[in-house]
Amino acid sequence: MTFKYSLRVYFEDTDAGGIVYYGNYLKFMERARSEWFLQQSIGMKSLMEDHEMVFVVSRTELDYLRSAKLEDVLEISTELTELKRVSAVFKQTVTRNGEVLCQGTTKVGCVNTITLKPCAIPSEVHAQLNQLMR
Amino acid sequence: MTFKYSLRVYFEDTDAGGIVYYGNYLKFMERARSEWFLQQSIGMKSLMEDHEMVFVVSRTELDYLRSAKLEDVLEISTELTELKRVSAVFKQTVTRNGEVLCQGTTKVGCVNTITLKPCAIPSEVHAQLNQLMR
Amino acid sequence: MTFKYSLRVYFEDTDAGGIVYYGNYLKFMERARSEWFLQQSIGMKSLMEDHEMVFVVSRTELDYLRSAKLEDVLEISTELTELKRVSAVFKQTVTRNGEVLCQGTTKVGCVNTITLKPCAIPSEVHAQLNQLMR
Amino acid sequence: MTFKYSLRVYFEDTDAGGIVYYGNYLKFMERARSEWFLQQSIGMKSLMEDHEMVFVVSRTELDYLRSAKLEDVLEISTELTELKRVSAVFKQTVTRNGEVLCQGTTKVGCVNTITLKPCAIPSEVHAQLNQLMR
Repeated sequence: MTFKYSLRVYFEDTDAGGIVYYGNYLKFMERARSEWFLQQSIGMKSLMEDHEMVFVVSRTELDYLRSAKLEDVLEISTELTELKRVSAVFKQTVTRNGEVLCQGTTKVGCVNTITLKPCAIPSEVHAQLNQLMR
Repeated sequence: MTFKYSLRVYFEDTDAGGIVYYGNYLKFMERARSEWFLQQSIGMKSLMEDHEMVFVVSRTELDYLRSAKLEDVLEISTELTELKRVSAVFKQTVTRNGEVLCQGTTKVGCVNTITLKPCAIPSEVHAQLNQLMR
Repeated sequence: MTFKYSLRVYFEDTDAGGIVYYGNYLKFMERARSEWFLQQSIGMKSLMEDHEMVFVVSRTELDYLRSAKLEDVLEISTELTELKRVSAVFKQTVTRNGEVLCQGTTKVGCVNTITLKPCAIPSEVHAQLNQLMR
Repeated sequence: MTFKYSLRVYFEDTDAGGIVYYGNYLKFMERARSEWFLQQSIGMKSLMEDHEMVFVVSRTELDYLRSAKLEDVLEISTELTELKRVSAVFKQTVTRNGEVLCQGTTKVGCVNTITLKPCAIPSEVHAQLNQLMR
């Protein structure tokens, strides 16, 4: 169950090395995860408003293998690879014409928006995510 | 001849005020202008590689009227409103469901990529842009 | 009463043109205005927490005259040039060794953090700002 | 031999969760590494101009433990923990009043600016870095 998201590289994404600034891959991956969540009708906005909860990133691990350039079209694949009571792990890969540029994992944890303390993922959201693991 | 580009607001675009960070509208407008140029087959990358030229922004003027929020879908309209020998002006408007959030103009100038000095827009590009003014 | 703030240009600030991305001057100017406010003991955080108010940017007008490069040290001057009941205008200039790279004005308006509607600048803050006009 | 760099959190650094956007810690750490390199008189700009080389990030691994807020003053410590022929690893920690908010490692590799292929760190730079390991 791999979800694909694609985007184009603009000037804002690049740096003086003439390539995509490595820090921006985190943004690209988040855009893809956001669309993945929204496709399941799990928006962060509704989580925040209805449940006073939000998923925050607690760990990122990325390998930058090849560089992307201005106007490149990149594709980002997103897979949920781990699901626990308060956290989840996504594996994501950024490719250009099938060639892997960057890959990594992002761990997100469910926290209360007021206290910022960890809390259990709401049960209906958890059940829904659990189905996407299979 | 108005060109429409649309995007979704992600966490990266927002700030602690809970709204889209005003500085990011410049990025949104640039994404729209980039797609506008690419639709005419005028990519900045090919301008740089084939002509050693690039359009750089020389003036921006923006009014922020209403705020956008996380997960909003925004639409950006782009119109070329002025064309001279070395420069061009775009008028752009960001709307959400038809409501204007931000509008402004961006002046771009053609410069040599090595010297960064102003230079005339290549004649075939100028002719092409000129048609889009009508 | 001109306030000076200085910063160094890092990779994050640059783009594939090899120069500072024009959109980032808005960030540089905001850093300088933030320090200007904090020097007067007017932090946005305390405004938000104590008064449920915040200054939001309602208009920006910038001219980009020369480009800055990686590792350049830039200096930003900040002056309050207009003060009304709900808004204020700042004039800011970014220089490198005295040479003007970018200059412009930023209009900020006081809004309620909940409703995002305009509201009068708190009287003690207004009085304090008024002194800085002279 | 730990190097300290400090910065203040501005609106540009935050997101709609009211905290520093996790992706921005990569920028904070890079600012600290840049100043660390410059303190040794190893600027990326001179590496690029004199040696046609640049250090690019090949791997990042970060844990986000606590969140930072608007106007917080953060301190970033930087240590070189590994040095090879073409690569180096830095360990960095972001703290606020001694409390650890984020920590991680960044691996950088030396590449030729034209080919973007890995190349040996120039011997005098390598010798200099080697001294900083002790």
